[in-house]
Amino acid sequence: MSKPAVFPPQGDNKSEIEEGAVFAPRFDADGLIPVVATSASTGEVLMLAYMNSEALARTIETGEAHYWSRSRGRLWRKGEESGNSQRVVEMRTDCDQDAIWLKVETAGAEAACHTGRRSCFYRAVPLGAPGGGVSLSFVDAERQFDPEAVYVTLVPQREP
Amino acid sequence: MSKPAVFPPQGDNKSEIEEGAVFAPRFDADGLIPVVATSASTGEVLMLAYMNSEALARTIETGEAHYWSRSRGRLWRKGEESGNSQRVVEMRTDCDQDAIWLKVETAGAEAACHTGRRSCFYRAVPLGAPGGGVSLSFVDAERQFDPEAVYVTLVPQREP
Repeated sequence: MSKPAVFPPQGDNKSEIEEGAVFAPRFDADGLIPVVATSASTGEVLMLAYMNSEALARTIETGEAHYWSRSRGRLWRKGEESGNSQRVVEMRTDCDQDAIWLKVETAGAEAACHTGRRSCFYRAVPLGAPGGGVSLSFVDAERQFDPEAVYVTLVPQREP
Repeated sequence: MSKPAVFPPQGDNKSEIEEGAVFAPRFDADGLIPVVATSASTGEVLMLAYMNSEALARTIETGEAHYWSRSRGRLWRKGEESGNSQRVVEMRTDCDQDAIWLKVETAGAEAACHTGRRSCFYRAVPLGAPGGGVSLSFVDAERQFDPEAVYVTLVPQREP
């Protein structure tokens, strides 16, 4: 893998950032940018994760989703342990270039979540109740694989 | 509007966080949680924004999307200026409860982006090129309204 190129600094020209063709992603104070991955086939939101500039560059270069694991403090190719890698069908950025949207095809068990589910968003928050103290309900929560059997390492797993 | 309730602290019981029914969202060091809003009708990703606990509580209570504006440093009901409010059809949280997914119906001009577009993600990042220096291409970038005519205030507008 070649050394990832550095993205140009974003600067503060709002018009260039929003209406220009130069990709100048804005990373947060930790050097990360949030990434929404959706299923290219169903459109459902699979996960929200983060990339640093290296993960972003590798994803662009290879077309395979790479993220930055905040819990493990390292670059992470999605599926490197589980086999459920993500081929990027389309990548987009938003108006202020501080977020990424990936449309992906998932290999293997078609599961993006480390809990074995297709999506990390397998619980609904009921609406209408005043504020805190609400109970979540499980939706689309069937496991596609058994995480105990798939993840054999003992490192903390907080990312999808 | 009643005083927003406080959500329970998340704690560190991974099993309760991932498999429990208690909604205990995890806010970052700035007290914010990232929120993906998708169109309830088309499924497309409209925007990525942030909520603080008050915005989250008000969204749950009212079923209307409220966010925290990082640029303006204040709570913000989506559409309060533009008229393009978001009725929440479904709210979900993810495995580690540090992200929110809203499926929304947009009122008014059916535009989520402050630039007048339906989605904030109106530019694609080409794949296959090595790292930085790529040129964005505009996709689904037709404006649904004229932002100059809609936003009459002169406050900075970085959020959607």
